[in-house]
Amino acid sequence: MNLLSSFRVTQEPLFKQVANTVEKMIHDGVLRPGERTPSLRAVCDQHGVSMSTAVQAFVELESRGLVEPRHKSGFFVKAPPKVIMDLPGPPRVPMSGSLGNRHASLFDAVVAGNVIALGGAVPSPEILPTAKLNRMLSEKARNAGARGVMYDLPPGSEMLRRQISKRMTKGGAVVAPADIITTCGATEALMLCLRAVTKPGDVVAVETPTYFGILHVLEALALRALEIPTDARTGLRLDVLESVLKNQPVNACIVLPAFSNPLGASMPDDAKQRLVGMLKAREIPLIEDDVFGELPFGPKRGRTCKSFDDSGLVLFCSSFSKTLAPGYRVGWVVPGRYYHAVRIAKLTHTMATATLPELAIASFLADGGYDHWLRSARAIYKMNVMRMRRAILEEFPAGTTVTTPQGGFLVWVTMPVTVNALELYDRALAKGISIAPGQLFSLEPRYANCIRISCGEPWSPRIEGAVRTLGSLAKRQVK
Amino acid sequence: MNLLSSFRVTQEPLFKQVANTVEKMIHDGVLRPGERTPSLRAVCDQHGVSMSTAVQAFVELESRGLVEPRHKSGFFVKAPPKVIMDLPGPPRVPMSGSLGNRHASLFDAVVAGNVIALGGAVPSPEILPTAKLNRMLSEKARNAGARGVMYDLPPGSEMLRRQISKRMTKGGAVVAPADIITTCGATEALMLCLRAVTKPGDVVAVETPTYFGILHVLEALALRALEIPTDARTGLRLDVLESVLKNQPVNACIVLPAFSNPLGASMPDDAKQRLVGMLKAREIPLIEDDVFGELPFGPKRGRTCKSFDDSGLVLFCSSFSKTLAPGYRVGWVVPGRYYHAVRIAKLTHTMATATLPELAIASFLADGGYDHWLRSARAIYKMNVMRMRRAILEEFPAGTTVTTPQGGFLVWVTMPVTVNALELYDRALAKGISIAPGQLFSLEPRYANCIRISCGEPWSPRIEGAVRTLGSLAKRQVK
Repeated sequence: MNLLSSFRVTQEPLFKQVANTVEKMIHDGVLRPGERTPSLRAVCDQHGVSMSTAVQAFVELESRGLVEPRHKSGFFVKAPPKVIMDLPGPPRVPMSGSLGNRHASLFDAVVAGNVIALGGAVPSPEILPTAKLNRMLSEKARNAGARGVMYDLPPGSEMLRRQISKRMTKGGAVVAPADIITTCGATEALMLCLRAVTKPGDVVAVETPTYFGILHVLEALALRALEIPTDARTGLRLDVLESVLKNQPVNACIVLPAFSNPLGASMPDDAKQRLVGMLKAREIPLIEDDVFGELPFGPKRGRTCKSFDDSGLVLFCSSFSKTLAPGYRVGWVVPGRYYHAVRIAKLTHTMATATLPELAIASFLADGGYDHWLRSARAIYKMNVMRMRRAILEEFPAGTTVTTPQGGFLVWVTMPVTVNALELYDRALAKGISIAPGQLFSLEPRYANCIRISCGEPWSPRIEGAVRTLGSLAKRQVK
Repeated sequence: MNLLSSFRVTQEPLFKQVANTVEKMIHDGVLRPGERTPSLRAVCDQHGVSMSTAVQAFVELESRGLVEPRHKSGFFVKAPPKVIMDLPGPPRVPMSGSLGNRHASLFDAVVAGNVIALGGAVPSPEILPTAKLNRMLSEKARNAGARGVMYDLPPGSEMLRRQISKRMTKGGAVVAPADIITTCGATEALMLCLRAVTKPGDVVAVETPTYFGILHVLEALALRALEIPTDARTGLRLDVLESVLKNQPVNACIVLPAFSNPLGASMPDDAKQRLVGMLKAREIPLIEDDVFGELPFGPKRGRTCKSFDDSGLVLFCSSFSKTLAPGYRVGWVVPGRYYHAVRIAKLTHTMATATLPELAIASFLADGGYDHWLRSARAIYKMNVMRMRRAILEEFPAGTTVTTPQGGFLVWVTMPVTVNALELYDRALAKGISIAPGQLFSLEPRYANCIRISCGEPWSPRIEGAVRTLGSLAKRQVK
């Protein structure tokens, strides 16, 4: 914990203090869901602040998911985020192929180009430190000599592993360079972990809704997905997981505790600790996917599950695909007690990670201004998410709700039940807009009226127009 | 075939004509195995050629595997290469983990450095066009802009696929860029193919001895290896395969028809055609691994199995790891009728191949002088292999035999049966020399007295000394 205390130096600005007061009123039940909040003017008077501070306070409250603007009638207290209360049925074997086809068709749209890509969770090269990274790779390639063309056999570049080890302290985990294995992105890391801890037919507990890539990897390895309800604010429902663990065997668990995909949920640190303990008690390995962990909207990131791991059962996966360069294909895994198995799996999987992209990223971490860049990116994503939410609430059919993530750049949109997301996907694509339909995020027919929207592009009239188009397409499906 | 005829322009030089005459004498039984050949002087007189031409002719005969020099007593006709005649027993499930451990320990030695690495099939950066490639990558990175940091989603770079499509005509296969998917090396390509055509428990026919990486991938996917005897000169024994196919189910077959690993065998083109036909008749997919295919010692490469494929059942895998830059991690697959399944598998495996290394290799193929480089590399490897063979025959215990590959840079050494290769491996490593023990190349205890030696390094007194050390260590194991 003392590693993190250095992040707590800023005094709360005035608008946050105002927001805190209103938040307390909501928590205390003084303001109830669906009620109109005090007007901006009233807040100015009551707290003795300027109009601009009052506006900022409401933007903050909105970003906390506590209030929502309604067209021309001010702010209203939001209903608490709906939790999926239905317990999952017995685990089932994913339908072979079906998911892969959908997954691939999503990428077809991106590859085809000329599409406003709101479907993929891909950061824009306009926001990424593109020029600087490419310059660093260029320099590394020029000076690498023999090393540049040679295999960098697992565990991979020591220079990079040293930098990763340093960064991981920000999530509270003390991990030596020797504990880390570099990978071709988090996708490979995830698959290596599953290969190390499971065998075909095993049951793996996952969040629901969850990133379709995870379901697809489970399908590829003939594993059975057990979908655990997940709260849009606080992540995996530990109460449900606990009761499930009592009643049936679970061989591994995968979570995205930080700004999950697609919900953007953030597990509180104490929940992470509880989760790690709960699985440790049953000797169940926990695969932690932290790809969005470095993109909190607030001043500091939370702790990782890995930071609570004292038994080596947590396999931590991440990558630089959301923060630096997806095309460099550099990620990593901290496999804990499964180090040896993961390293061997890596040899048959891809043999090694591409050497020069590893070295370029190591350089960028060492002296490319990564933290500086992260700060600016986080501010951009926070703003993007806020604008996207507002645009969606304005343009989509009445009754539509949008998650309020505290980091990352994804929002999850729940439309009225008559809207079918796959139909919307087809119609949107015909108009040059790609979205991720809710059906991808579960093996059960749970999210047919949901879509995931990426806010990874700089905000623009083009995107605003795309949201308007999506909204009117969705409205046509409302009876 | 007409694609290839342009390669047949050179008239046979004098020394080859002499060699051909002697080869005919051997084939006709005029000269018999174990007999001394006519002396160099006699050849000069008989053919009216210079001493230097006669020497060249014998070097050529040696490289064809027909004669062998014996210490201070001239050349002798070699016994025809021994074929493993024992039919394999029923297919068995690989022992879990054991292979991976050996595989990893082989790499540990390489990673540790300070080792004369004769064990890995890795080309030396001193022979590779290292500086030019790195310069090309440097330039690509400098000018790539957004493209450089973005995903190059499967099927991967079109520029690269166009170049690969062109090159593949040299093996007689007409393959469109749209038929190709780029991969993180041939390792990933192989695994994607197996994932596309098999399910756990399936039986896969492979050569024996075969590259341990293949056995390891089969183990990782819970597939059963069926080892088919393989001739050191002509590759997979089709007669054996045919009788096996009649008697038991086989779900896929993997071959390295060009300069196989470890034997260096070359399947004749008509055998490749027969193999493709034999499998097609039973609808069995054939995975062709061509990583050494571009490194023939003669003026032209043979045809690929893919070139005989008219049903889409051949999945062709290759990479630039033996010819350009292992560390760039760029390979490819032509999956035939399994295109869709392989592309989807790639998404869950690594999502994409690293963008800039792909583009650098595409540039090198387009205008980096790839053919020019290949010519010089082939001459170097041919010379290396010849020197290595001679050194081994000179230094190793009497009775040792060495394969005579017609391409690539690997030789397979069979020592007297009392020599245990794993013991030799340990002792050699203690002296700073790494080799690949025969035990790695089969799941059966077939090759305990064999080792694979790589000739991928420039010849040097250091390597000569290493062979001398290996020889004397092996001699100590001869009772």
